[in-house]
Amino acid sequence: MLKKVLLGSLGAALVLTAGILLGHFAIQKGSTTPDWVMDVTQDVNEALIQKFIAEVDNIAIQENLRSDAGYQSINLLNQIRRCWKLYQCLYISFFSSLIFHIFFYLLKQGKYSDSQGKYSDSQGKYSDSQAPYGVIGVLVYTDPWDINDGKMSDTNETYPYSWYMPPSGVERGSFNTHYGDLLTPYLAAKDDTYRIPAKNITGIPPIPTQPIGFEDAYTLICELGGEPAPSEWQGAFNCTYNFGGPGFKPTSNFNNSDVKLDIYNREELKNSANVMGVIQGSVEPDRYVIYGNHRDSWVHGAIDPSSGTSVMLEVTRVLGRMVKQGKWRPRRSIIFGSWGAEEFGLIGSTEYTEEYYSKLSERSVAYINVDIAKPSLWCLFAFLKVKTPGSDSTSVYDNWIRYFNRTSPAYGVIPNVGFLTGAGSDYAAFIHFLGITSMDISYTYDRTKTRARIYPAYHTAYDTFDYASKFIDPGFTSHQTVARTAGNVLMRLADSLLLPFNCSDYAETLEGYLNKAMELYTDGLAAHMISIEPLQTAVRNFRSAAARLDQLIRDSNLADETPLKVRRINDQLMLLDRAFLDPVAFPDRYGFRHVIWASSKAGQPTFPGLADAYTRATSTGLDSDWKEAHRQLSILIQAIQGAAHTLGDVI
Amino acid sequence: MLKKVLLGSLGAALVLTAGILLGHFAIQKGSTTPDWVMDVTQDVNEALIQKFIAEVDNIAIQENLRSDAGYQSINLLNQIRRCWKLYQCLYISFFSSLIFHIFFYLLKQGKYSDSQGKYSDSQGKYSDSQAPYGVIGVLVYTDPWDINDGKMSDTNETYPYSWYMPPSGVERGSFNTHYGDLLTPYLAAKDDTYRIPAKNITGIPPIPTQPIGFEDAYTLICELGGEPAPSEWQGAFNCTYNFGGPGFKPTSNFNNSDVKLDIYNREELKNSANVMGVIQGSVEPDRYVIYGNHRDSWVHGAIDPSSGTSVMLEVTRVLGRMVKQGKWRPRRSIIFGSWGAEEFGLIGSTEYTEEYYSKLSERSVAYINVDIAKPSLWCLFAFLKVKTPGSDSTSVYDNWIRYFNRTSPAYGVIPNVGFLTGAGSDYAAFIHFLGITSMDISYTYDRTKTRARIYPAYHTAYDTFDYASKFIDPGFTSHQTVARTAGNVLMRLADSLLLPFNCSDYAETLEGYLNKAMELYTDGLAAHMISIEPLQTAVRNFRSAAARLDQLIRDSNLADETPLKVRRINDQLMLLDRAFLDPVAFPDRYGFRHVIWASSKAGQPTFPGLADAYTRATSTGLDSDWKEAHRQLSILIQAIQGAAHTLGDVI
Repeated sequence: MLKKVLLGSLGAALVLTAGILLGHFAIQKGSTTPDWVMDVTQDVNEALIQKFIAEVDNIAIQENLRSDAGYQSINLLNQIRRCWKLYQCLYISFFSSLIFHIFFYLLKQGKYSDSQGKYSDSQGKYSDSQAPYGVIGVLVYTDPWDINDGKMSDTNETYPYSWYMPPSGVERGSFNTHYGDLLTPYLAAKDDTYRIPAKNITGIPPIPTQPIGFEDAYTLICELGGEPAPSEWQGAFNCTYNFGGPGFKPTSNFNNSDVKLDIYNREELKNSANVMGVIQGSVEPDRYVIYGNHRDSWVHGAIDPSSGTSVMLEVTRVLGRMVKQGKWRPRRSIIFGSWGAEEFGLIGSTEYTEEYYSKLSERSVAYINVDIAKPSLWCLFAFLKVKTPGSDSTSVYDNWIRYFNRTSPAYGVIPNVGFLTGAGSDYAAFIHFLGITSMDISYTYDRTKTRARIYPAYHTAYDTFDYASKFIDPGFTSHQTVARTAGNVLMRLADSLLLPFNCSDYAETLEGYLNKAMELYTDGLAAHMISIEPLQTAVRNFRSAAARLDQLIRDSNLADETPLKVRRINDQLMLLDRAFLDPVAFPDRYGFRHVIWASSKAGQPTFPGLADAYTRATSTGLDSDWKEAHRQLSILIQAIQGAAHTLGDVI
Repeated sequence: MLKKVLLGSLGAALVLTAGILLGHFAIQKGSTTPDWVMDVTQDVNEALIQKFIAEVDNIAIQENLRSDAGYQSINLLNQIRRCWKLYQCLYISFFSSLIFHIFFYLLKQGKYSDSQGKYSDSQGKYSDSQAPYGVIGVLVYTDPWDINDGKMSDTNETYPYSWYMPPSGVERGSFNTHYGDLLTPYLAAKDDTYRIPAKNITGIPPIPTQPIGFEDAYTLICELGGEPAPSEWQGAFNCTYNFGGPGFKPTSNFNNSDVKLDIYNREELKNSANVMGVIQGSVEPDRYVIYGNHRDSWVHGAIDPSSGTSVMLEVTRVLGRMVKQGKWRPRRSIIFGSWGAEEFGLIGSTEYTEEYYSKLSERSVAYINVDIAKPSLWCLFAFLKVKTPGSDSTSVYDNWIRYFNRTSPAYGVIPNVGFLTGAGSDYAAFIHFLGITSMDISYTYDRTKTRARIYPAYHTAYDTFDYASKFIDPGFTSHQTVARTAGNVLMRLADSLLLPFNCSDYAETLEGYLNKAMELYTDGLAAHMISIEPLQTAVRNFRSAAARLDQLIRDSNLADETPLKVRRINDQLMLLDRAFLDPVAFPDRYGFRHVIWASSKAGQPTFPGLADAYTRATSTGLDSDWKEAHRQLSILIQAIQGAAHTLGDVI
């Protein structure tokens, strides 16, 4: 998982309303009624969902994890009806890093190899430093303040005594800014696919980066000279963190020393496989609900990603048995994907979306991602009537609303849902490139009780079965809850007569974004003769189209209607996120086509393209940058109007 | 109409098979059968089509034309249920020209204004000539050889004595290489839309161009000195056409004279309106069949476009009456569009597709274009059981197959259908930008009897009602035939239970393209280590997917099946052309996203992107150009595979 953990991040407009459970429409069959009439009007069967929930077994999940879920997944996916492997030949770059505490000033002052402030690798790449401030390399570590609540001692505080990361733990990760195979943008990486020259790759760090454990970082940081760094740079070490400018303290043994950075990064073409499984839908096989997780990991990866894989395997085991016993067939098709090469930049899932672009765009109802099934201490998030672990009465829904809520103008206090604005895991290509409504489910811990931004063994060699079973989820009941929740969501998406999406929630988000944009940008735009008013109009039109569709749904007894009317409404809901795509909006940013959810550098809760362009224009003052701000505004207005057309009266 | 006339050009895979007329499925209603069952399984009603054909009135069309159809269309579209005007603020450039005979050598030698070979207009644009050979301006005319079968005399040969163009006739047209509003690429031209700076416009001629009549051209050409031009440059004038290098003949009165070119071109922002009408579908209102023609013309435009508009008005009159009388409602929605600003670069229709991109992409079944309803002498082309003008027994289909046929491996001798590879009329944005299956219907003359590449008054001031009614279609029976044919096609597209598309015909086209590509490119590609084999595989996969879908259709009694199965198959057919779109395939060519039908400079009947890239690579020999050829091959393969996925088993 690349992202900072999103608390219960539930993407885009996909809000599974708890209430839309239309009664089953039982047609009393006359002799002349076609057989298919009952099938096409069938809604979710609540009893089957309860059956699924009852059968999900925590011990089965535990054994999946113990037996190395990732590598077993190829065989275990046989539990469902059809499965196959898709091989791809991928470019994998072993650059790694995550920036938390970076002491690049040290490196800037330390001279490397040729004392010219230049760095050469064996391929002659990066021969001049392309990074800011002339930095030629980065050491990165995770400070105990950020991950361990300050705990540092491996004699009694860190793993194996607790869930905290030991001093030798090294958190690595990908630092790519583009996702997917960097050699084959917009093309699936097959053997014969055209690959761009490696020197033309963009989106990777221009300088080498090396993650280290905090025990090594301690040795270096506490010896740094220069001015003290600001308070937000200080960490848990028992010393003042200095800028190190220039070099180490005069009193240090390291004084006048360089840090030598030996890099063993390499770039290779490797094969990777996505393992796919399918349960064919009975009524609308041409509608897909996709459930995915990656299979590759940094080192062991018991939690990331194998907790998710163990859960997926259990979901497929239970659903597969229901199918084989003839007890259940989903209305829509379900596709399970076990992705390869996620940690190198979401490569497996991205190449899959490129290869199957047309049919996935045409037919996908939603994508569900579960990669870290449970970096959990206590319970916080999940869904509906699934019970929280260790409780017979509290539902995940209740717990969610208790720990992470917001106040909606329409509904009052409701569970809060994060936005999938980044490219943190395999949902990225589905939401940003294909415009498929996506969600990312994880079960996390009570954030009032720890500062850890993620479970401390994340992306280290300590993320093992022993760690998971002792400190993360003894008894695997949280895993069980995630499996129940994910399967519950999956079955509702697959079986509901009406897709459980609420487009008025999307309107609420757009209105929030609009208010923020008006607050921040109205005056500045007006000073350049650009009116924000058409954006207001577009958002108003979207709201009114969403309200009309909601009204139509409320006024219809869908089980009595022609199945083509239900399909029409479902298509409007399914294609809503597609309508926000603009393939020419962000030409320099691979795969980001969704004008609402694209990531943004501006750091404001508003429309990303406008925010970034406006920020740039105010910073440079260039006429061309103000023109780009206007262009981004026009793109945004057209996309919102287009989405309103998708939701509005169909003709 | 911008294009060279395409003989019965019928775009993309849209082949309306004559045969797929499934019997009506009459369900004997039991008391428990839902009311909608009969509606959703209803197929085309042949009797209603016959009723439509019978009611189409040639005199009504004549009176539409006499009363200035274009300007009446706004009111007359009231004949159908709902209509409205969409205003757009468009950039209109009054540059004009079509190249047939160009004697730019004359202009090259003649010096203009400052005798430096430079030209300045009042805005300082084109201050250096950007055209090849240092040309600074172009005079363009239409030679009597090309348009008049050599006839030149206005005392007894040309109009008003015949259909031939008089010596003073000036054929103008747009010379833009991009279509749509050049100031608002990919954005609908609304009041507040961002417009690029005029100096950044691409796709217009870099030098001024002035069309003249052949009487003026005669005066100049026959005085030109220099070497004789090649035989294909010679025309109908009674002199040898010389290159004119340098200047006029020493014996000419013009010797040592310059040609002075006074240009009154201007660039303006103007408002233009599309006039839209809708008949809402009864069963699948969220599926659109679009019928369009433009309303603007060069000078009077009795034939281009008003013949098409007169026909559209008659179609709406007859269909509108059937709807109002309660005799008919189409299964799918029908949208009529009367486009503005076509002659300036297909602007009205293009801006419409940009504004309604999402819903048109999601829902459009087909686009039918009828702009020149009939530059006709004798009959050649149309459809099905509609009778040819002046015959009670010969169908348009029979006549078509007689005059313009091809031999298909699968069907034997069948009517030939041209490809919509260019941007000749308002279908361009529908097929190339949106990937909507499109057809362009026109009724044309017997090409064995004239060399005229189009009716001679085309785009001149002589294209009048008098001209049309005397020399093109006295009695307006050919107009009537076009109206019957277009309406027939329209009703079948709107009402057929199964869309009348034949995807195996698409496979035949791809195989033809593949064979040509293999013949031309295999060795050259192999010499650069690029294998064409994956392209063969992709085409084979497409063929097999198309065959399986055909088989599924043949094996199904669709009237007995669930309507969701019929919808599924129809969606596969509808979305087939969409699957060939790639928005990043041709980044420098506005609006060309369809990798099969994009226009090509290579002039080969094969895949356009590959053909152009290969031609360029062989010409320059640059490694980067061979890489682009490989990239185009990969794009093509992925698109064909994607289209095969769209047609193949849905899961």
